[in-house]
Amino acid sequence: MPVKKIINDPKRVVDESAAGFGLAHADLVRVEMDPIYVVRADAPVAGKVGIVSGGGSGHEPLHAGYVGFGMLDAAVPGAVFTSPTPDPILAATKAVDGGAGVLHIVKNYTGDVLNFETAADLASADGITVRAVVTNDDVAVKDSLYTAGRRGVAGTVLVEKIAGAAAERGDSLDEVAEIAERVNANARSMGLALTPCIVPHAGEPSFVLAEDEIEIGIGIHGEPGRERIKLEPADRLVDRLIEPILEDLPYSEGDRTLLFVNGMGGTPLVELYLAYRRAAEVLEERGVVIARSLVGNYITSLEMQGMSLTLLKLDEEMIELWDAPVHTAALRWGR
Amino acid sequence: MPVKKIINDPKRVVDESAAGFGLAHADLVRVEMDPIYVVRADAPVAGKVGIVSGGGSGHEPLHAGYVGFGMLDAAVPGAVFTSPTPDPILAATKAVDGGAGVLHIVKNYTGDVLNFETAADLASADGITVRAVVTNDDVAVKDSLYTAGRRGVAGTVLVEKIAGAAAERGDSLDEVAEIAERVNANARSMGLALTPCIVPHAGEPSFVLAEDEIEIGIGIHGEPGRERIKLEPADRLVDRLIEPILEDLPYSEGDRTLLFVNGMGGTPLVELYLAYRRAAEVLEERGVVIARSLVGNYITSLEMQGMSLTLLKLDEEMIELWDAPVHTAALRWGR
Repeated sequence: MPVKKIINDPKRVVDESAAGFGLAHADLVRVEMDPIYVVRADAPVAGKVGIVSGGGSGHEPLHAGYVGFGMLDAAVPGAVFTSPTPDPILAATKAVDGGAGVLHIVKNYTGDVLNFETAADLASADGITVRAVVTNDDVAVKDSLYTAGRRGVAGTVLVEKIAGAAAERGDSLDEVAEIAERVNANARSMGLALTPCIVPHAGEPSFVLAEDEIEIGIGIHGEPGRERIKLEPADRLVDRLIEPILEDLPYSEGDRTLLFVNGMGGTPLVELYLAYRRAAEVLEERGVVIARSLVGNYITSLEMQGMSLTLLKLDEEMIELWDAPVHTAALRWGR
Repeated sequence: MPVKKIINDPKRVVDESAAGFGLAHADLVRVEMDPIYVVRADAPVAGKVGIVSGGGSGHEPLHAGYVGFGMLDAAVPGAVFTSPTPDPILAATKAVDGGAGVLHIVKNYTGDVLNFETAADLASADGITVRAVVTNDDVAVKDSLYTAGRRGVAGTVLVEKIAGAAAERGDSLDEVAEIAERVNANARSMGLALTPCIVPHAGEPSFVLAEDEIEIGIGIHGEPGRERIKLEPADRLVDRLIEPILEDLPYSEGDRTLLFVNGMGGTPLVELYLAYRRAAEVLEERGVVIARSLVGNYITSLEMQGMSLTLLKLDEEMIELWDAPVHTAALRWGR
């Protein structure tokens, strides 16, 4: 029986979807097909640091949804939940090089890190200066399926926005890399899943949860987290995510944070805002100031039901760069 | 066994979610709790036509996500998939009356229409001029569960955006109502479902689909559509939605349209863009110009997997109003 999804052929999902993305957002991006990557319509921007991210597909709008003014210059989609190969990463890197160097933003998964490194080496051999920032904001587990060290998850969206704004205002490659590192160092995330998801070419769920069971600390590919527990009320679930985050990076009274409640793809918004309410309550009790917030499906795992919480400890420069204009398919303000 | 959702208590879902929405978007909205409605933070705007919409919850970001500059002045959420009562609609109408009258945008469901009418009568008795536009863009069925005549679905989002822009530029109540009617008259939609959804207080799916079965012409509350068929490739599914739309409102070569591919909540973006590709292909074959587009989860049915297509035949004024600045939680550009 074919997998129950709106697709034609599991092998053509990423190509056909990228083609549709290119048609829908032709004012913002160009989609190259051989090898496949999504690039800002006006790339390369002369004198601006180029920013490239990428990774397995299935996490949309990450990363292609963030290509445009004030954020990424290119995104490289691999097959679903599979790292892109060095070839398209290299091609994207060349396409966005405006002479000021290129920053790679890489989620910490072994395949992604290796393939971006290889592409960076090849780009360097071609005379392009490349720096890489590896995101690893997930406090759930140390070492995981596919990963040595912590996994890079929702904090990546915040790194891309803030680093993108720094590049857009004309910062140098070292400066853009520095702020990207700083955002990653101040971001902490943790997620949970109520249901698994089905990778199109696999055709069946990558893991199984009982009717009353959830996974705390889930990875964005369905990798195991900390524990499986019985379903609990939302407020308790929020506590289970926010407490390890605040233990890992303590806040003092008056510290400012960006509170990001992210849906895994299949979670209704009504549940994400309900979770936001409790997270805001916990932070208020501790005297933490929610200076900015983001709620929605920004880094997903196909149709998985679940959510993640991310806290980013903000400084003045990060706030300024967060507020700076951005114009992408999935994040837009100020223009 | 409790329903597997991120909630505390099925009876408190709408209240707690609205509270979270108010906290997350305090720069845009105020949330009143007794009776419950979401209103622009700067309401009433003196001299501006106020626009109120509402309906059962579970379709988020509709309608609260569209409250803000350039779109709605207030949104009134009922219980999940249940019309709000006249009380909060009346309160919201009073709260947004800036002296230029108030437009109600109502999706065509019997309960919504009745309750908005009652609220309008009460508001009139209080000296507020109210006009109503009832949306009915769904070509799938004539008469349905909960509805006499066609159902109002995704076209409602487009009506709210364009009428909102007209109100923002200072149009009179009659003018805003006229453009809202015009958008509704030129919008046609049809949807399909791969899976049902679970209303929190019901605890079980409102309908059942076999593993290989889908519903063509689904309503946004899971009402029956035209037929149940076996799953088919995405391109064929898109054809099954777009053909009845184009039959119902034919296009001539060179006509301009807004192509809106909407997810029902649980559908990955990768599938929506894949569907967009085919819809764009069909339109190109017929010489229809896609002048604007929208892709994402804008009017949902909780975690339902499925999608709808909407075509809006555009004139110059609609394009201008579509492009006008908007600043809401779910739709934002130009500021």
